[in-house]
Amino acid sequence: MKRFRITLSYDGTAYHGFQRQRIGQTTVQSTLEQTLSKIANVRVSVFSSGRTDAGVHARVQAVHTNLPEKWEHTEALQSALNSLLPSDIRILKAEIMPDHFHALRDAKKKMYVYFINPQPVQNPVLARYSWHLRFPLDWNAMAQAGQAFVGRHDFKAFAAADHSAKTTVRTIESFEWGTLVVPGFGGNTGLGYFKVVGQGFLKNMVRIMVGSLVRVGAGKAPVDSIARALISGQRNQAGSTAPPHGLWLWDVLY
Amino acid sequence: MKRFRITLSYDGTAYHGFQRQRIGQTTVQSTLEQTLSKIANVRVSVFSSGRTDAGVHARVQAVHTNLPEKWEHTEALQSALNSLLPSDIRILKAEIMPDHFHALRDAKKKMYVYFINPQPVQNPVLARYSWHLRFPLDWNAMAQAGQAFVGRHDFKAFAAADHSAKTTVRTIESFEWGTLVVPGFGGNTGLGYFKVVGQGFLKNMVRIMVGSLVRVGAGKAPVDSIARALISGQRNQAGSTAPPHGLWLWDVLY
Repeated sequence: MKRFRITLSYDGTAYHGFQRQRIGQTTVQSTLEQTLSKIANVRVSVFSSGRTDAGVHARVQAVHTNLPEKWEHTEALQSALNSLLPSDIRILKAEIMPDHFHALRDAKKKMYVYFINPQPVQNPVLARYSWHLRFPLDWNAMAQAGQAFVGRHDFKAFAAADHSAKTTVRTIESFEWGTLVVPGFGGNTGLGYFKVVGQGFLKNMVRIMVGSLVRVGAGKAPVDSIARALISGQRNQAGSTAPPHGLWLWDVLY
Repeated sequence: MKRFRITLSYDGTAYHGFQRQRIGQTTVQSTLEQTLSKIANVRVSVFSSGRTDAGVHARVQAVHTNLPEKWEHTEALQSALNSLLPSDIRILKAEIMPDHFHALRDAKKKMYVYFINPQPVQNPVLARYSWHLRFPLDWNAMAQAGQAFVGRHDFKAFAAADHSAKTTVRTIESFEWGTLVVPGFGGNTGLGYFKVVGQGFLKNMVRIMVGSLVRVGAGKAPVDSIARALISGQRNQAGSTAPPHGLWLWDVLY
């Protein structure tokens, strides 16, 4: 057996999240494991860089797994997987790694992007991939407020109540925003996005960060509400959890 | 009753085309008519600028219909429709028109765009909206060949065998190609597209045009094969019908 890293991309709309579920719900992990098991003729498990919630997408996700040596022809492995997987999951790369490689522990940084489309009417394509808000947002206020996230902080106020992390201290390396003009889509103002890079994230953390910023951008909370929520450590001091379909795991850096 | 023009956009993936079907298949038209009938409390029919095939998308489509006078508050009509329709159909605009307005007869021009993604591995989002080809294409040869479409021609060779048009003569006003870089998607080379403007199109015409061009771009037919197929009037002289999901009704001009 050899250790492989498999880099994949998925549209999360049709899946109950990345992680295998006990009951028979279709997840990205279960779909990938079933396909790997079929081609390897053994039962295969994969370990990811981290789970994504139901409805969240991944431009880039990475997993490790062990496979029989004959799959060291990684291009054949990639082709075999892509020919069997549904079109909303694509294998971008398969590589042989040292035996000790671990998709979660060895991930140095993760980048998430959250798309927001503030328009009177949502676009039917962007509806799958961005959060539609009917009102305009003050992007400058949101960008200013978001700078409070950068650095090493206790993100307890920005974690789902049922998180299982031992510590809620995390380091956010950068927090940027911008607008993306997709020709023909997204209205005149373009699609707004937040891009956040960190060493690790708590359950629902990016979605609560975005929900808290939208409260600022909509004028319903002051710019310093983010910094104050961080200091309080109280979940109810942060905003609501933004919906999953605007969130993308954008990159995993090793 | 007043005459309305309703401008809409849809992701065609989930629908059996635009046009209402006799049997109980879900189409864009049946979904729109059911929703209009519900809010107007009368049975409402709509007439489109033209049908789109199963799986084809519309950035912009237009229909006309008659509705009770109380819906002359067109913003309320638009809001009511968008709150009831599924998220893959969005109403962009509702307008009151002269009684004789006709969505098909009054359409001066239509623009179609066809997206092609020539990459070793398709992107899971673009899989819904573009034709994936594993081999590179000679875009210059395709653009050159496509110029033969421009002008007034008998497009008999580029119509589905079961078309029902009285004449197969059509006028193509322009035929362009380009590449669109969607940041983070579509690989290094970007998404290729063809944009065609005409006064009217035959059944499957754009898809057969694209299928014929891809044969040229793949080096399987010479550049002049397009012009020769036009002159022949023989369907078997043109290429195969490109898949529906790469095709977008991009605009309807009145």
